[in-house]
Amino acid sequence: MVKMANGGRRLRPAVDNLEGSLIRKVAETNIGRDDLIPLWFGEPDLPTPLYIKDAVVKAIADDHVFYAQNRGIPELREAIADYSENMIGRQIGVDRITASVSGMAAIMLTSEVLVDNGDNVVVVGPVWPNCKGTVFIMGGEARTAPLRADFSGQWHLDLDDIRSRCDGRTRAVFINSPGNPTGWIMEQEQQRELLEFTRERGIYLISDEVYIRLIYDRPRAPSFLDIAEPDDRVIVINSFSKTWSMTGWRLGWLTHPPDLGPDLSKLNEFNIASPTTFVQRAGVVAIREGESFVKEMVERYRCNRDLVFQRLESMGRVTLSKPEGAFYAFFKVDGMTDSVEYARKLIAETGVGLAPGRAFGEDGEGWLRLCFAAEANTLSAAMDRLDPMLS
Amino acid sequence: MVKMANGGRRLRPAVDNLEGSLIRKVAETNIGRDDLIPLWFGEPDLPTPLYIKDAVVKAIADDHVFYAQNRGIPELREAIADYSENMIGRQIGVDRITASVSGMAAIMLTSEVLVDNGDNVVVVGPVWPNCKGTVFIMGGEARTAPLRADFSGQWHLDLDDIRSRCDGRTRAVFINSPGNPTGWIMEQEQQRELLEFTRERGIYLISDEVYIRLIYDRPRAPSFLDIAEPDDRVIVINSFSKTWSMTGWRLGWLTHPPDLGPDLSKLNEFNIASPTTFVQRAGVVAIREGESFVKEMVERYRCNRDLVFQRLESMGRVTLSKPEGAFYAFFKVDGMTDSVEYARKLIAETGVGLAPGRAFGEDGEGWLRLCFAAEANTLSAAMDRLDPMLS
Repeated sequence: MVKMANGGRRLRPAVDNLEGSLIRKVAETNIGRDDLIPLWFGEPDLPTPLYIKDAVVKAIADDHVFYAQNRGIPELREAIADYSENMIGRQIGVDRITASVSGMAAIMLTSEVLVDNGDNVVVVGPVWPNCKGTVFIMGGEARTAPLRADFSGQWHLDLDDIRSRCDGRTRAVFINSPGNPTGWIMEQEQQRELLEFTRERGIYLISDEVYIRLIYDRPRAPSFLDIAEPDDRVIVINSFSKTWSMTGWRLGWLTHPPDLGPDLSKLNEFNIASPTTFVQRAGVVAIREGESFVKEMVERYRCNRDLVFQRLESMGRVTLSKPEGAFYAFFKVDGMTDSVEYARKLIAETGVGLAPGRAFGEDGEGWLRLCFAAEANTLSAAMDRLDPMLS
Repeated sequence: MVKMANGGRRLRPAVDNLEGSLIRKVAETNIGRDDLIPLWFGEPDLPTPLYIKDAVVKAIADDHVFYAQNRGIPELREAIADYSENMIGRQIGVDRITASVSGMAAIMLTSEVLVDNGDNVVVVGPVWPNCKGTVFIMGGEARTAPLRADFSGQWHLDLDDIRSRCDGRTRAVFINSPGNPTGWIMEQEQQRELLEFTRERGIYLISDEVYIRLIYDRPRAPSFLDIAEPDDRVIVINSFSKTWSMTGWRLGWLTHPPDLGPDLSKLNEFNIASPTTFVQRAGVVAIREGESFVKEMVERYRCNRDLVFQRLESMGRVTLSKPEGAFYAFFKVDGMTDSVEYARKLIAETGVGLAPGRAFGEDGEGWLRLCFAAEANTLSAAMDRLDPMLS
């Protein structure tokens, strides 16, 4: 063919080499199975609550169907700022809030702001792999600072593991707490110590706090917004997906130093223009009228967590600690060396769909993730099926 | 402050140097003026038609609120493929269709696929500047191949202007026809010649065809899909915004070689996961039941175009040709050397908001853009106000 004559590159090596989701790889060939209990994806099982659906229908009727401001409609940014101030108990100005078309998009924008070819970001993991994906797309390197599990299956971070991985090309440290898949919570004291380190280095701290409200021993997890000054190089990622059960709606936000606002505005313009206008209107209602919904949802997840923890703990080959945050049980299986193969085998033999630990980085190998945002009787049935293989 | 101690870079120079929209810069300080007639943005004035609003309300009621496939729900991709096949009269497989969260996002994905640090893209302009923005974000260079206006204000492309700007680091040529702001139509014969050139070079041809249905002398503009083979390095951008009056909805798509599908899937995952799920459902209905709406809309724009052309043509300082496509009158003003200043002056003295030609590149200097997607009596009033200054 003529077109291949000069054998030019087809596409960027960085994109060619991107690893797709191993969860999707395991799931794809099995979706649609009759007896499947799918607990592999990180998604609430219940649809968005009615008060939010009503709000979006009203916004559409009111013709909120035109272009919106790049950083989001003022009403949404104000609602987010108010919510943050109530939650944190400190002033968080609207000039620090930029809406994005999901938490995922917020992370991509962050990498676009920070990561030049050859730069690196130190990512604490096992962790949802998508942060690393955005760094790769920008031509950067993602280095893992490992969480380490103790004998009881609880995860811990040694800050020296971060320090030792930073060099002159390090642009940021990426933290996800409460953590997906580990449920790890970074406590405020350690946050302080890390913030001091990133300040000294002059690098950014990216804190993915999308699970901040999904926590079982207090109203919310510690936030870097508790301790950071407005001008600190701290970018906090949040999303409507988990807290208000709005995964398919695509709405999130960044809290950032005020001087990044104009840059994020331009980047939203060139990436997506702005999130869907009527979805933003619904977001205002979701956040302003959502507290009772959030409380009920967390109570439901707490019961699910207790059920799943009790059952898994009793299985002989399983090591796990009680998840403190997020909605995952992340557990080690004695003797399992290939989590992708094992997840496939579990589906074939039990019809229970779990996510392989390796999907979250090499430090996740040997582990499996189960999402307990499901009906209790579904979770019980899954436990009954898993028991013979894991005991 | 401690955090600045080592004086590290704040953010990427590529982002720091991004130029924001000059249209927004002119508009921002004037939005909200009492007597304003805003014709500066490229947006239909009428809200989305009812049949699409009904469809999205139904999709929400039916709980289409969860995550969707990265490349879009199968029903949407099939509807787009069917629409393309009907329009083009050739087979366009579903494996060549990827949904995106707007035409803008589709262009950003394309730059992520193609543009490495130091690469370049040759962009035919004056043109909506956002394509160049995506190239800059990826660390690339955007080179303009100029359209040239003849004495009557009609724009022409000399392919040698493209050829002479391509070098070993050129990854793609970017064409927007029907063109924003020029209304320029690239005819099929010239498309063939350009496709031959990009085939020989082994580079990509990116064709932004979001205005393909907004054309006044035939049912649609020529498309590169008319002449490209499936495996050609051709990526066609399209969007729901203009054709179905859905600007604020954020939905678009790419038509691409089948082998790019898995890469675009990964890139959607790491950029936005997928477009809003219920918006995709509405997109299926928009495209399958939208022909009568599109025809009515084009007829309305045709009347507006004739009105605006007739009035502007009669003003002594104005040079323009009759717009053949898109919904803009792009006209030269005799003696105007700074279109940004002049657009500001026009607003101050007449209350009519136009876009400065320089917003579309240096080749646009000396020109102004007026969007005629508005009520006829509004356009008449604008003409009455502009007449004293432009005659």
